Amino acid sequence: VKEQLVAYLGPPGTFCEEAARKRFREGALLKPCMELGEIWDRVESGEADFGVVPVENTTGGSVIPSLDLLFERDLKVCGEVELRIRHNLIVKPDTRLVEIRLVVSHPQAIAQCKRFLDEQLPLATRRTVESTAKAVQMLAETEYAAAIGTESAADIYGMKVLVKDIQDNPRNFTRFFIIGTRDSPPSGSDRTSIVFSVAHLPGTLVSVLEELSKRRINLTKIESRPTRQTPWEYLFYVDFEGHRSEKICHQALESMRKKTFFLKVLGSYPKARP
Amino acid sequence: VKEQLVAYLGPPGTFCEEAARKRFREGALLKPCMELGEIWDRVESGEADFGVVPVENTTGGSVIPSLDLLFERDLKVCGEVELRIRHNLIVKPDTRLVEIRLVVSHPQAIAQCKRFLDEQLPLATRRTVESTAKAVQMLAETEYAAAIGTESAADIYGMKVLVKDIQDNPRNFTRFFIIGTRDSPPSGSDRTSIVFSVAHLPGTLVSVLEELSKRRINLTKIESRPTRQTPWEYLFYVDFEGHRSEKICHQALESMRKKTFFLKVLGSYPKARP
Repeated sequence: VKEQLVAYLGPPGTFCEEAARKRFREGALLKPCMELGEIWDRVESGEADFGVVPVENTTGGSVIPSLDLLFERDLKVCGEVELRIRHNLIVKPDTRLVEIRLVVSHPQAIAQCKRFLDEQLPLATRRTVESTAKAVQMLAETEYAAAIGTESAADIYGMKVLVKDIQDNPRNFTRFFIIGTRDSPPSGSDRTSIVFSVAHLPGTLVSVLEELSKRRINLTKIESRPTRQTPWEYLFYVDFEGHRSEKICHQALESMRKKTFFLKVLGSYPKARP
Repeated sequence: VKEQLVAYLGPPGTFCEEAARKRFREGALLKPCMELGEIWDRVESGEADFGVVPVENTTGGSVIPSLDLLFERDLKVCGEVELRIRHNLIVKPDTRLVEIRLVVSHPQAIAQCKRFLDEQLPLATRRTVESTAKAVQMLAETEYAAAIGTESAADIYGMKVLVKDIQDNPRNFTRFFIIGTRDSPPSGSDRTSIVFSVAHLPGTLVSVLEELSKRRINLTKIESRPTRQTPWEYLFYVDFEGHRSEKICHQALESMRKKTFFLKVLGSYPKARP
């Protein structure tokens, strides 16, 4: 049996790698990519079987580049993973809390640990880098520094977790999509993601959403986005409960298609367990 | 006449300062704040008359901390400004393009100039900092470096614009809100921003939005956000055309209030001119 290859947003030690591990356990070889577009490239070319990409975070909102790529490219969403975001203060094995003069991390991680930093490290300089994993990687060559990152990044780069769970908000989740060449068969507890655009806004959006509500289909997310091409033209990203192959979902999608400029089914997939 | 004091997200030279200048011209003293919450504090305490805060960007999406503060605190939206985001490559007056080994900026600015950087500066290291203005400020003490930032930042810090308009996407806009203790009187071309939550999702959201559509009121933005407290409970941020004091808008809001857990009018204000 050939091992599955899964492309994720790297470097090793990111939350995206944690999400990939949560989904694929030991059964896959994980390949870090440095850009989102590269993940689509590798899955489209067949080099990777699946991709794992962040789509939204409770405190940071939607990951717009992921939404754009889902709209522009033709891969399907075949799964979702929800990950509780836990931040840790990570140092070189011999660094003590009182010695820390510099804290390095991704801007969102620094923002999400503001209260801890203000109280425990009020005098330390804060510096931002592209990823939490990169921050941990930089510790080796920096004196009196700490990074905010994942436990697995501390392991990978031979560093030590000095303080666990330093995030201000304990209810901070990131949602990831698993992308592939096909979506998933019905599991009995599914979600479907679509994107569509409508002509003008007053009546049409409501009339499209009614095709879901009149069939008692639960809408679980809606977001409008201006199109890149035309100002005042909008795309709507909508998630609802059910699988596109179930009769009522299929009927709803057919009716919605008639009321929209275009409608693209991004995929149906089993709902993440909380 | 006492000069108006306007608090904005600093440091000096940010796009937020440009938005404040676009709105208040020479008629106000601008006060940079280093955090969004500080802007709310200063306006609430009466120290500042108005605040200017970013709310969404075409390529970056909503600024979630601003949405959270609008929901949690009680200031009103009394205006909006739309700013085309133009990035410039900025250097010390004596630095030439071929000498640049390091490019520093806010992560979104670096992402938005990727094509330019890949083509023109493929070998330069890219480093991220908290703001484009901070990046320009750092140039003074860094050799062979360039920053991506605004023309006004180049002016303020005595640096030189080497290449103008280096952004990949020419249609990149950021929308800013003007916040104050009251919203604005009707101008004839207004927009209203609200936030509400509804009980369960299938029928209720559509039924709330129908109060707008059946009165031919144009919805111009919708976004769902999970609440911080309860999972599976959503807030909806909605913008529509019209002023809350106009009869049909007032009626729509009253009817929507009866169908929602709560509904908060963030404010009515003149629409930004494109």
